[in-house]
Amino acid sequence: MNDRLADKKVLVTQSDDYMGPGIEALFRDEGAQVIAIPGVVPTGDQFDDYVNTAGGPFDIVVANLAHAPCNGPTANIDDNDWRDMFDTMVEPLMCLVRHYAPIMASAGHGKIVAITSAAPLRGIPGSTAYCSARGAQNAFVRASGLEFAPTNVQINAVAQNYVSNPVYFPEELVSTEKFQNHLKRNVPRGRVAKTSESAELALFLASDKSDFIVGQVIPFSGGWATNT
Amino acid sequence: MNDRLADKKVLVTQSDDYMGPGIEALFRDEGAQVIAIPGVVPTGDQFDDYVNTAGGPFDIVVANLAHAPCNGPTANIDDNDWRDMFDTMVEPLMCLVRHYAPIMASAGHGKIVAITSAAPLRGIPGSTAYCSARGAQNAFVRASGLEFAPTNVQINAVAQNYVSNPVYFPEELVSTEKFQNHLKRNVPRGRVAKTSESAELALFLASDKSDFIVGQVIPFSGGWATNT
Amino acid sequence: MNDRLADKKVLVTQSDDYMGPGIEALFRDEGAQVIAIPGVVPTGDQFDDYVNTAGGPFDIVVANLAHAPCNGPTANIDDNDWRDMFDTMVEPLMCLVRHYAPIMASAGHGKIVAITSAAPLRGIPGSTAYCSARGAQNAFVRASGLEFAPTNVQINAVAQNYVSNPVYFPEELVSTEKFQNHLKRNVPRGRVAKTSESAELALFLASDKSDFIVGQVIPFSGGWATNT
Amino acid sequence: MNDRLADKKVLVTQSDDYMGPGIEALFRDEGAQVIAIPGVVPTGDQFDDYVNTAGGPFDIVVANLAHAPCNGPTANIDDNDWRDMFDTMVEPLMCLVRHYAPIMASAGHGKIVAITSAAPLRGIPGSTAYCSARGAQNAFVRASGLEFAPTNVQINAVAQNYVSNPVYFPEELVSTEKFQNHLKRNVPRGRVAKTSESAELALFLASDKSDFIVGQVIPFSGGWATNT
Repeated sequence: MNDRLADKKVLVTQSDDYMGPGIEALFRDEGAQVIAIPGVVPTGDQFDDYVNTAGGPFDIVVANLAHAPCNGPTANIDDNDWRDMFDTMVEPLMCLVRHYAPIMASAGHGKIVAITSAAPLRGIPGSTAYCSARGAQNAFVRASGLEFAPTNVQINAVAQNYVSNPVYFPEELVSTEKFQNHLKRNVPRGRVAKTSESAELALFLASDKSDFIVGQVIPFSGGWATNT
Repeated sequence: MNDRLADKKVLVTQSDDYMGPGIEALFRDEGAQVIAIPGVVPTGDQFDDYVNTAGGPFDIVVANLAHAPCNGPTANIDDNDWRDMFDTMVEPLMCLVRHYAPIMASAGHGKIVAITSAAPLRGIPGSTAYCSARGAQNAFVRASGLEFAPTNVQINAVAQNYVSNPVYFPEELVSTEKFQNHLKRNVPRGRVAKTSESAELALFLASDKSDFIVGQVIPFSGGWATNT
Repeated sequence: MNDRLADKKVLVTQSDDYMGPGIEALFRDEGAQVIAIPGVVPTGDQFDDYVNTAGGPFDIVVANLAHAPCNGPTANIDDNDWRDMFDTMVEPLMCLVRHYAPIMASAGHGKIVAITSAAPLRGIPGSTAYCSARGAQNAFVRASGLEFAPTNVQINAVAQNYVSNPVYFPEELVSTEKFQNHLKRNVPRGRVAKTSESAELALFLASDKSDFIVGQVIPFSGGWATNT
Repeated sequence: MNDRLADKKVLVTQSDDYMGPGIEALFRDEGAQVIAIPGVVPTGDQFDDYVNTAGGPFDIVVANLAHAPCNGPTANIDDNDWRDMFDTMVEPLMCLVRHYAPIMASAGHGKIVAITSAAPLRGIPGSTAYCSARGAQNAFVRASGLEFAPTNVQINAVAQNYVSNPVYFPEELVSTEKFQNHLKRNVPRGRVAKTSESAELALFLASDKSDFIVGQVIPFSGGWATNT
């Protein structure tokens, strides 16, 4: 191991989901003290309890926020699904940045890495609600990343797609011939990424090696989307 | 006049706000029958009443949705402001597309033009909530625009900034020396746009001349942002 | 007809190729006086002869520049093909802008519309040389469009793909079942555009209706690429 | 030291210029065997001699290609400057990829990291020729990166701006009050990057940690440009 995060105190949110387990494992391996909190990040008054429980201060916050994509035609978007996505992924991101970024700014340094999605970078028919919520996240990262840039706090996003995880790309789906053909046609890299590969990009953005990178939404999708 | 929208029935939402007045005026001048409904577009059950009152069917829906930007540091984002922005600008856009796009698809043609913002294309410190909500809109337009593309329904957005209007760029602000210097440094075009100029881009996207353009978020900001 | 370009004097370059015929036809229909010059636009000393022959001054210059895409693996890029693409599409664009934009700036108004490609917006394997040359064009339009923005000269690009034309998408290719399947999978709009549809976007950018739009590269590809 | 590039054989081109010295130093520190070749990368027949001299095979090629930006109004672009920029930065990049990527593909792995510029991502008035050449590079990286993605060869770019180096941002410029004010207004990070910081992003893209990232042009500009 390289101790690339030695002496860093890290909060990983929704740690039982999405990139949470992979990031927790890698960051621990690299010497970080990781506070991993499972479950959805609450908003409103409950958010105060959340941060009290989390402790801190943190050198690094990994805003890992996820919700099932609720795929289906736009005509059938369910109001509750819509609101759940924004309540789970978007408002908590704002709460996390609103709370932790000023504390980091006062401390003179800090990193927030949001694990978002490349979906809004191209737009996915049948996944329009999810694209909208992830687009809100990416836009918030860009704007708040620029706002906190002068304070030596770096806020950036891993905008991923086609990364192995049990919710979006379970192994039993990935291994089908149909999905393999889909990969060949749509993902230049021709495969899904391992969770640990996404975690490496998160680690780079969380480390002292990337202090000049701010407000950046970095596509991580095997070439499916290369723009931001 | 050119009658570029002759025989078109058009819904303009929140018609007393943002680009509403300018679009209503231009579209009428060009021969459209415009149903202009002032006020915020409701969601949930009230949305059904809204569309019943609006009538229809429409050839064109202009999703003109706006909210004060509530500028200020991210540290001070007010929960109510945050939710109001998403409730006013983002969820209504989804409701409008979810309702009207399938009807248009059944009819074999239709146009939805969203008047959004270029703010999330660059990111504006001190305006992160607004950037996030507008980013959600842009992402929804991109994804739903691609979803409805095969049905001959075109959904696109005018992503504007630095367009004259009483809320964001009132004349008494624009005419100050300070703002004029700001324009010179930040807006290559060196001036704010007239509302009628933004309305012309909306008209192009609403007209039969742009049937191949789908899911597109077009920056309209005098060169302030040129990416999407 | 609408006389949308009444009293406008327009230069269309390489008028026998790419979007040249379609633009010439539409612009004439709309009342413009069109000087259409067939053939590749020369560079170096011969460019002076070219502009002398063209006459002028022009209100509008359509920088329609094209070359066969020379598709094939990157490993097989031919040095002569590579240079021909840059000599035909990139350097002439610079020469046209370098010559005409300052004249337009002195006159107090003017429009340059470059007909480029969406290819570099996504990147096409097997077409990397073409992508590079078109990317050089798009970048030049963006930068020079911002440079001339304060002078009331608007420089923008139509970044197209999947537009019918004899070189890239001949009818005998488009009508095959294989290509139709390709369209269904890759182009949300599900069809190729008619040349006249691309010409309508060029007309919008060439008209007095778009004076606030500068340095913009607008994708026109039926949803194949929606970013810039 | 971390030996993050242990056992890697690396070619760094134009090693006496731009990011060359910084990359050579960092890569050596991390255990790589670096072949650093100073001077412009030739094209045509001389390119064969170049690669023969370089030796190989290489695990990693850093396509570090630079030319003075030749700033000035578009009206004054000198034909020789224009061609020199494309001959120095664009065609050599193609030659390097055309030669090395297929060899890497045969070997079953490889990395090409191009050090390009963020300039074309926003567009810089007075630097339009440079923007165009760098835009050609970025487009080539995107397209060729997707082409070689299935072969386990990763081609990506560091699109930088505001990185300290003697040609573009010499210390005597950076330290002036005028430039510091320029930084405050235009670069959210508020400072220029050290060469070593850019080299860290190049290292990440050159390492085994980034095998899922292909065809990506990553802005590295302290928030000046956050799009691609």
